[in-house]
Amino acid sequence: MIIGAGFAGLAAMKVLGRRDADVTVLDRTNHHLFQPLLYQVATAALNPADIASPIRRIVRRSKNIRVLMGEARSIDVGRRVVVLDGGEVPYDFLIVATGAGHSYFGHDEWERYAPGLKSIEDALEIRRRVLSAFEIAEREPDEARRRAFLSFVIVGAGPTGVELAGTLSEVARKTLARDFRRIDPAHARVILLEGGPRVLLSYPDDLSESAKRQLERLGVEVRLNSLATNIDDSGVDVGDDRIEARTVLWAAGVAASPLARTLGAPLDKAGRVEVEPDLTIPGHPEVFVVGDLMAASEGGEPVPGVAPAAMQAGRSAARNILRQIRGKPNEPFHYVNKGLLATIGRASAVADLPGLKFSGLVAWLLWLFVHIFFLVGFRNRLLVMIQWAYSYFTYDRGARLITTTWHGLTRSRAAAAGAIASEPDHSASAPER
Amino acid sequence: MIIGAGFAGLAAMKVLGRRDADVTVLDRTNHHLFQPLLYQVATAALNPADIASPIRRIVRRSKNIRVLMGEARSIDVGRRVVVLDGGEVPYDFLIVATGAGHSYFGHDEWERYAPGLKSIEDALEIRRRVLSAFEIAEREPDEARRRAFLSFVIVGAGPTGVELAGTLSEVARKTLARDFRRIDPAHARVILLEGGPRVLLSYPDDLSESAKRQLERLGVEVRLNSLATNIDDSGVDVGDDRIEARTVLWAAGVAASPLARTLGAPLDKAGRVEVEPDLTIPGHPEVFVVGDLMAASEGGEPVPGVAPAAMQAGRSAARNILRQIRGKPNEPFHYVNKGLLATIGRASAVADLPGLKFSGLVAWLLWLFVHIFFLVGFRNRLLVMIQWAYSYFTYDRGARLITTTWHGLTRSRAAAAGAIASEPDHSASAPER
Repeated sequence: MIIGAGFAGLAAMKVLGRRDADVTVLDRTNHHLFQPLLYQVATAALNPADIASPIRRIVRRSKNIRVLMGEARSIDVGRRVVVLDGGEVPYDFLIVATGAGHSYFGHDEWERYAPGLKSIEDALEIRRRVLSAFEIAEREPDEARRRAFLSFVIVGAGPTGVELAGTLSEVARKTLARDFRRIDPAHARVILLEGGPRVLLSYPDDLSESAKRQLERLGVEVRLNSLATNIDDSGVDVGDDRIEARTVLWAAGVAASPLARTLGAPLDKAGRVEVEPDLTIPGHPEVFVVGDLMAASEGGEPVPGVAPAAMQAGRSAARNILRQIRGKPNEPFHYVNKGLLATIGRASAVADLPGLKFSGLVAWLLWLFVHIFFLVGFRNRLLVMIQWAYSYFTYDRGARLITTTWHGLTRSRAAAAGAIASEPDHSASAPER
Repeated sequence: MIIGAGFAGLAAMKVLGRRDADVTVLDRTNHHLFQPLLYQVATAALNPADIASPIRRIVRRSKNIRVLMGEARSIDVGRRVVVLDGGEVPYDFLIVATGAGHSYFGHDEWERYAPGLKSIEDALEIRRRVLSAFEIAEREPDEARRRAFLSFVIVGAGPTGVELAGTLSEVARKTLARDFRRIDPAHARVILLEGGPRVLLSYPDDLSESAKRQLERLGVEVRLNSLATNIDDSGVDVGDDRIEARTVLWAAGVAASPLARTLGAPLDKAGRVEVEPDLTIPGHPEVFVVGDLMAASEGGEPVPGVAPAAMQAGRSAARNILRQIRGKPNEPFHYVNKGLLATIGRASAVADLPGLKFSGLVAWLLWLFVHIFFLVGFRNRLLVMIQWAYSYFTYDRGARLITTTWHGLTRSRAAAAGAIASEPDHSASAPER
């Protein structure tokens, strides 16, 4: 059984497909999500379906793989069952690949004011907030309030924060530049807050410095050593400094999936499972933990939470299961560093490859190539390439839709028709008022 | 001022753009929606952004047009103001083009069990329900319950009902055919209920007959003279006959936008405004009502609620406003019938053109051509053509995503993490349980 169809789970599926093993894949969504491009959905460049493929479609030809949509509530490693809502699934071998969510460092109340970016739903919510902010600013007569709607704060300058900040600044300066009559979107402020001393902390110093310069060239205000101490519906406090901003995005903390806690294995501070060298948990050579949920190390260094590491771990776990089926013992996992890539904006990126570092246009072209290449499905690759080419030449973004939720919509319709009293609808109105 | 950026409002904007007039366009969404292809979003063939264009983007070059996102609450024709949430907008000339929503014939409580198809949100909700039904059926051990999840009822056999029924049957029989292990999606039942004696009542008898045959060839059960008498969370009653079906879609009734009532003009039974020959309301030559909101007639026949009629009406109203600005009186509106087209499924359609009727492949090719041609924006045309070509050859559909709402998601995340008590979440769980 495989829980989670992200990069790690998908890699395991590919090894186990059409082999002599009955495989069940459980995921709470029906799709594999290409997370590295999620920020492009949040910033209206791509459609959700361009970066998400139905899991069933991917494994259609592997008749030994059964896909279930549902959420694992807990794992009983003693009885060897996974507990779902309304049922249990027994297993002989288990791969847990449920990844990580956001951590608000004990301030879960900040989530409603500052959504993070992990799912399609997150991306659409961010898109709705960002585009709505410009719409509300256009209608807002009060100068101070208008400025707050045109201020965007991104908390955390890791790869996601850097991508979001660079892209948002481009959207304001280029895509929306000529579309408004009262406001000038190019005057929007994009502020990137980082608690540490530099952006992209996992990169070498000089690439961090280059990324910061590239961000500033795109119009982003980068504030280092700046920890958000409070977030509410109208802005962010950084110590005694107050930033009035109606749109705040969270790219700071990562917390392992809570499913990890039910394994009874040792966890690190972020809630990740401290795995054995073969990625299993102590005393259970049949239970593998892979991807962002594992705390593994290679040569004394922690294995980073990036897609290539997840794919390598998923493949290693699946191969060890095939070995055990043949009566052989597990082999240890070895992470091979293929390098790190982070994009910042149009023709801006940094690349930290083994023995090679570069930034700017060449890094960006490499980033483009790698991301198109690893995207699942020919159809997605073609559509993404066309949309990128179109955006590159026109600065336009095709997915500039503000959508609410169906339930929010039906309630507001009914209220407009006078059929029912209007009730507060958090889906439709948060966070603008 | 123009309220509503559908086909009628957009046509009026195009006439008034870059003329010597200050135009304000108000819409509650930020996009113009190409409604004729909305059923393709509901059935996972296209992305929302493929058929929706930001209104600001469309009128970017018309500096005399200002776009506001917001909802008109009422119109005061005496004071010549449109009342919004938190404000009023004065006008000299007004075009009301807010269209129509669903009518449940006095049974508004059916809406939650049987969503209709008018907005992007509706389409995504239908897509979620349809795709989720197959997922739940795959996990459901009970035979009778499984059958109910694999039964789909469409209420109303007008153009939207026919499109939805034909396409859903294709999705089950072709797209999903090989993707499940326990259930066979090809055994899904698609039942089209029509209260009248034939499908596509606005078409000639022989085309209705042809459409029915084409539907049945695609596997749809067509039930004529069958009025839904009750709808609940597990099915539909047709008199004494009960159909157990977990997914019910509404394509039966249309009701004019409630804004019409605030005009003080005479309304017809569906709530549409009975306009003067120049599409104005009695006593107010400066107030035009166009599109699905108008009850107009041509040669004794009612003008149908189709896109070409809306566009013609929008243009007529805008031209009359330009005439009045030059001191000339309004001219009456004349509807020119360009014909009716309805699609049923792959290579299936009917066409009722002036002096010419045909069905099948030729009608379908004409339908394809017309819809690509009228789609707004080169980018959308290109992307839709590629996706249609891909779907045609592979039977695959690219947008097979089940997504919930952000608020539903954050609540379920928090509940999983044990941070807050789980509360009933209608956004995420309806209608499956």
